[in-house]
Amino acid sequence: MPFTHDSLAQRVILGSGQASAALAAEIERLGGRRVMVIAGEHEAALADQVVADQSVELRWGEVRQHVPLELAQRARAAAREAGIDLVVSVGGGSTTGLAKAVAMEVDVTIIAVPTTYAGSEATNVWGLTEDGTKTTGADPRVLPTTVIYDAELTTSLPVDLTVASGLNGLAHCVDSLWAPRADPINLAMALEGARALALGLPAVVADPQDLVGREQCLYGAYLSAVAFASAGSGMHHKICHVLGGAYDLPHAPTHAVVLPYVLAHNAAAVPAEAGRLALALGATPTQVEADPAQAAVDALEELRVALDAPRSLAEVGLAEGDLPDAVQRSLPKIPESNPVPVTQASLTGLLRSAWAGDTPTLHRHP
Amino acid sequence: MPFTHDSLAQRVILGSGQASAALAAEIERLGGRRVMVIAGEHEAALADQVVADQSVELRWGEVRQHVPLELAQRARAAAREAGIDLVVSVGGGSTTGLAKAVAMEVDVTIIAVPTTYAGSEATNVWGLTEDGTKTTGADPRVLPTTVIYDAELTTSLPVDLTVASGLNGLAHCVDSLWAPRADPINLAMALEGARALALGLPAVVADPQDLVGREQCLYGAYLSAVAFASAGSGMHHKICHVLGGAYDLPHAPTHAVVLPYVLAHNAAAVPAEAGRLALALGATPTQVEADPAQAAVDALEELRVALDAPRSLAEVGLAEGDLPDAVQRSLPKIPESNPVPVTQASLTGLLRSAWAGDTPTLHRHP
Repeated sequence: MPFTHDSLAQRVILGSGQASAALAAEIERLGGRRVMVIAGEHEAALADQVVADQSVELRWGEVRQHVPLELAQRARAAAREAGIDLVVSVGGGSTTGLAKAVAMEVDVTIIAVPTTYAGSEATNVWGLTEDGTKTTGADPRVLPTTVIYDAELTTSLPVDLTVASGLNGLAHCVDSLWAPRADPINLAMALEGARALALGLPAVVADPQDLVGREQCLYGAYLSAVAFASAGSGMHHKICHVLGGAYDLPHAPTHAVVLPYVLAHNAAAVPAEAGRLALALGATPTQVEADPAQAAVDALEELRVALDAPRSLAEVGLAEGDLPDAVQRSLPKIPESNPVPVTQASLTGLLRSAWAGDTPTLHRHP
Repeated sequence: MPFTHDSLAQRVILGSGQASAALAAEIERLGGRRVMVIAGEHEAALADQVVADQSVELRWGEVRQHVPLELAQRARAAAREAGIDLVVSVGGGSTTGLAKAVAMEVDVTIIAVPTTYAGSEATNVWGLTEDGTKTTGADPRVLPTTVIYDAELTTSLPVDLTVASGLNGLAHCVDSLWAPRADPINLAMALEGARALALGLPAVVADPQDLVGREQCLYGAYLSAVAFASAGSGMHHKICHVLGGAYDLPHAPTHAVVLPYVLAHNAAAVPAEAGRLALALGATPTQVEADPAQAAVDALEELRVALDAPRSLAEVGLAEGDLPDAVQRSLPKIPESNPVPVTQASLTGLLRSAWAGDTPTLHRHP
């Protein structure tokens, strides 16, 4: 039970079709006088709609993945020159990331209007890339003061991206059960996020225009990011980070593939948490009473099948011959907080199953 | 689903026997140079222990319920004169309240070390009393920067006070289901708080020295206050406020008596939330599947019986003849957000049952 938990100050507004009105009210409340809007080309039309009623000093349209430092420096200079005191970001993680990069060095308030399920808007974590190397850090200045979620802005997000991004959020929730700074408050947020994503994702797959499902996905992704930022990276994220970095596998699909196997590896060691996760994912109470860890694994598997999410590391591009190397690279990164010891043998088994796309089998620990 | 939720920035540290070490680390982290310690006479020995390693500029021992303005002004003047920049409060709601009153007008950081389940430490709400009239308000300056929960400081809290104070916390959780600013984040916090209180309170009744149970109570009371401060007062708190104000009934026992009847009044109108509450209170999944609202009412009743909490408004001091007047006073205060309409008839029935101590009967709504 002993824990230290930091809650971050943030206003979250959720309402479909209300982004424009909410933005106007927040700019007024926060006393923003000179507004910069950051939105990449894909979100330009959405941004036009959201800021239509605002007087905008500076519009910034260049957004790139991983926030190159050079780009950040140009955006900062432009913000300084225009005397900007409030930045509105409309877009996904890279757009929010650029707004954060500006806020690191220019005294601005951020209002984030996310159009994906990336979750960066909920954290005080920034990332910058220089010469191919990404540096990250935490800084209170980069936390958006207000987040405005409007599901109408997300209806054009393709279903496959929605699923991959949503399962990435779900991975944040699940990994929070055993991450290094896991605490009961993170757990409560993570379980609520999992509940929302497990409701929202199937609804969006069934009908991409379903605003209630889209709202659940935004809400779930938000909580997943809050929990993850507080709990830190657990076994799942360490493995995915290695796979993404060493073999250039695609980020979100890799998460979707690996998560069921990590859950199957750890669930039996944390039956109480696994049972609560199973309920959040829609398992019946009877299933949970019978075997909470198995119920969690089964519920996640059922969700994955319902969402037609990718199954194997083979299909997302990992060569079978890379498996021993992937084990060697991942093993030293597994946090000591993991609820069961991870051995070369258990990790090899896990990654081989994930590579082949076998049905995840719950590991029973002695 | 549409909502606006404000999360407050706060560090929460929980660890039994760790208050002194945690306090030293936090004063260091926050750069406190001139420390004022507020602790009433009952907490003086606890405070001695907690601040033993600190250099203290000013020790303040006068603490009174409802924070009289005159007392607050003297404490502020003393803090100013001593050049205080950090206030440590060790005690219950009145002690935290005095620290908040100082912070309203003197630029200090608050570290709260609560010794009861009052919850004031989790909120930005202050209260001051002048000429018998209590004024309350919200101010970001009064929010404690850090809260340190050490269950060892609470083992001397008598069991009956623990139960009353804990059920007061539980009332915050339950009322958050339908309060005016109810939102899904508040709900998640409230349910987690209810879960912790339903685990902790019986453990403390069984063994007042049970540190794990005491930790659950502190943790649950914290979340109950977070949820309540954000969600606002629902039907339950409005009724209790009238009963306390008009007939001078004791605060916590009145909450303990009234809560089951308000839950029985509203639960059937919010079956999904009631089912989640029932699970949090320890109902079996089978009970919840069969009838979530009834399961919630039954689970609360079972808890009340297990805790031997007061049953009737008669026993806490309400005269039968005051019932019609209590109905008249309460009816206009019921928030419009209440999930079912409250009529003179339904409120009369509720208060009469609570007065007599009848077994709460679930109201079925058409």
